[in-house]
Amino acid sequence: MERDFYWILLDLALILFATKSLGILMKRLGLPQVVGALLAGILLGPSVLNIVGGSNTLKTFAEVGVIMIMFTAGMETNIKQIKSAGFASLVITVLGVVIPMGLGFVTACLFNGGFHVPREQMLSNLYFGTILTATSVSITVATLKELGKLNGKAGTAIITAAILDDIIGLCVLSFIIGMKNPTVNPGRTLINTLLFFIFAIGVGLVVNFIFKHLEKRYPHNRRMPIYSLVICFLFAFCAEVVFGIADITGAFIAGVVLSGMRSHKYIEHRVDIGAYLIFAPIFFASIGINNEFVSFDTNTFFFGLTLIVLGMVGKFIGCGAGALMFKYDLRDAAFVGIGMMPRAEVLLITVQKGISNQFIDADFMPYALGLVIISSLLTPILLKVFNKKELKPLNT
Amino acid sequence: MERDFYWILLDLALILFATKSLGILMKRLGLPQVVGALLAGILLGPSVLNIVGGSNTLKTFAEVGVIMIMFTAGMETNIKQIKSAGFASLVITVLGVVIPMGLGFVTACLFNGGFHVPREQMLSNLYFGTILTATSVSITVATLKELGKLNGKAGTAIITAAILDDIIGLCVLSFIIGMKNPTVNPGRTLINTLLFFIFAIGVGLVVNFIFKHLEKRYPHNRRMPIYSLVICFLFAFCAEVVFGIADITGAFIAGVVLSGMRSHKYIEHRVDIGAYLIFAPIFFASIGINNEFVSFDTNTFFFGLTLIVLGMVGKFIGCGAGALMFKYDLRDAAFVGIGMMPRAEVLLITVQKGISNQFIDADFMPYALGLVIISSLLTPILLKVFNKKELKPLNT
Repeated sequence: MERDFYWILLDLALILFATKSLGILMKRLGLPQVVGALLAGILLGPSVLNIVGGSNTLKTFAEVGVIMIMFTAGMETNIKQIKSAGFASLVITVLGVVIPMGLGFVTACLFNGGFHVPREQMLSNLYFGTILTATSVSITVATLKELGKLNGKAGTAIITAAILDDIIGLCVLSFIIGMKNPTVNPGRTLINTLLFFIFAIGVGLVVNFIFKHLEKRYPHNRRMPIYSLVICFLFAFCAEVVFGIADITGAFIAGVVLSGMRSHKYIEHRVDIGAYLIFAPIFFASIGINNEFVSFDTNTFFFGLTLIVLGMVGKFIGCGAGALMFKYDLRDAAFVGIGMMPRAEVLLITVQKGISNQFIDADFMPYALGLVIISSLLTPILLKVFNKKELKPLNT
Repeated sequence: MERDFYWILLDLALILFATKSLGILMKRLGLPQVVGALLAGILLGPSVLNIVGGSNTLKTFAEVGVIMIMFTAGMETNIKQIKSAGFASLVITVLGVVIPMGLGFVTACLFNGGFHVPREQMLSNLYFGTILTATSVSITVATLKELGKLNGKAGTAIITAAILDDIIGLCVLSFIIGMKNPTVNPGRTLINTLLFFIFAIGVGLVVNFIFKHLEKRYPHNRRMPIYSLVICFLFAFCAEVVFGIADITGAFIAGVVLSGMRSHKYIEHRVDIGAYLIFAPIFFASIGINNEFVSFDTNTFFFGLTLIVLGMVGKFIGCGAGALMFKYDLRDAAFVGIGMMPRAEVLLITVQKGISNQFIDADFMPYALGLVIISSLLTPILLKVFNKKELKPLNT
């Protein structure tokens, strides 16, 4: 153990250096930094240099990183904005969830033995649908800001939908993970999921009451982020161990519960610093480290490619159609559809969760990475193309 | 492993909650928060509630916490201030190191078989002297600020001496740890220690050159703290594995190397947030968790008490005498002597390091805690007493 520990210091140094350096490089190429972090993991791991192995310690750091990322994702939820979002945003979100999820599910069925398969295969197919739901719109937001369209109709719809689809996706994911145990029936899982949300709301109300009192006295005090992390870890633990649904759902909901606080930006910022200083880089690198990208399988290849395409097309059609239904003009509808295409952290986290729960084969990870890269590269280009095009006259 | 991980989430929640809450309580009582964190560990560990055990994962988190604390301690070094400190501060520091170290060593010899003992016992006795060297003057600084004396002669001397005694203490500690291997002779250890410092200065110059270029372009950018941590982990690894001296020395020196940067405050702040959000609380709690405070031994009791008293008296006499030699008036000399008495994080880290290297028996930890508590409580009281007293007429 002692000797082990010192070598972990070297692992940490190598991972932090490689993830940050490749992250910066990818950012220059217009890609999310997370792509660089994944490539760093592939580079350091057994696929290429083989100088960092997947130890249990790194695994624990990675898992804590996932919990913290999901927590900050939850904290970004603006409940007020969702309340005021109205019916249009809701329909855009639901269509943007249902269509890619359905397309993913059907594709998975077609590639994996059709629609009459055992329960585990069915759950796996459903899981493939679920991973396509969660967007990561930071690239969209940056591009819309650049184009001066962020505060328009499309921008508001995108931000609301991006938050809501995380929540819906996580509910479905929790349900599927809850169903993993073969002795458990759907009703029981549904009750567990519901019970967790009742627990979360109940505890959340009490915590909010106490925290609002605390933050009035100590608005920008170290204790606020630390106590928030306590809630995060506690919710993640309870979601997984007590209610049998995913720990990431617990962490996300803990973030949602605390997102209404006045000092939520401060808390989120602090936790974000803590997460991205050590834990999150280790998580993204560990994906690359733990996946040996050598095996190639034609079936997986075409399945993966189809999911990459449908992941983007599904969001475009679902969200775009939803926008058109509510009389968005063509340009705004295209903005919404394209803007919802990018995937990043949450996709990778849900895929990794699927692999560790044996719903998804580890071979699929490169295609998940492909969806992140392609959707991140295409989105800003397409947004700019549609911004220039003369579309308005068609509709107005 | 999977199941283990989820329970670590509960451990983290309990540790963060208890360390922070008791830390706040201790602060109200005028004690350092670290005392609360230790008490939290005792409370959660096998001594009282027995709900958190010392797992390997927690141990790794704790060790990373130590590395990060030592790194930020090193970053607080102001090389310019040390250069301009002058001969007086140097003498005050050296006397403030030599006297408590000598008193600790002699006491350890007297309690542990006299002066003619085997090499290991001699190293252990020397180690007891070394743990008394490093001060932690945050309580002094706060009190002097309150009294409006921080920028006076005494304040400046204290801040310089507090930095220098860390460095001297760590050099001695590195030497003792280097000597641990019975086949190694003192000359070899001395060479290793020197080689490490040559390595640190050499790499440090290159790193400083690159980093100063980087910080000019990206002054307040996330990459700076991350790359700094890379250097920290790398130095800690090399110090331990390549040069056979302590990892904490490597981390501290990495901090010193980077302390001259313009953005050092920003980097230190970021690393500090990362450390105190999760890692450092786990370290302090783990001290309490891993020590069952049940055994009582009369010899250890009197030895511990003597070291507590001599730890304070030694600093008071050493630094006070040094100050008097350079014509500080009585009040200022008393300020310097009292101001250098408090111990906190670095004492606990060096004691823990001594326990894991078998120089120090785990039974000693409560007395280390005692020295932290008593010196922290006494210092502000004594400073205020000496501030009120009419001492000046005696000397001017």
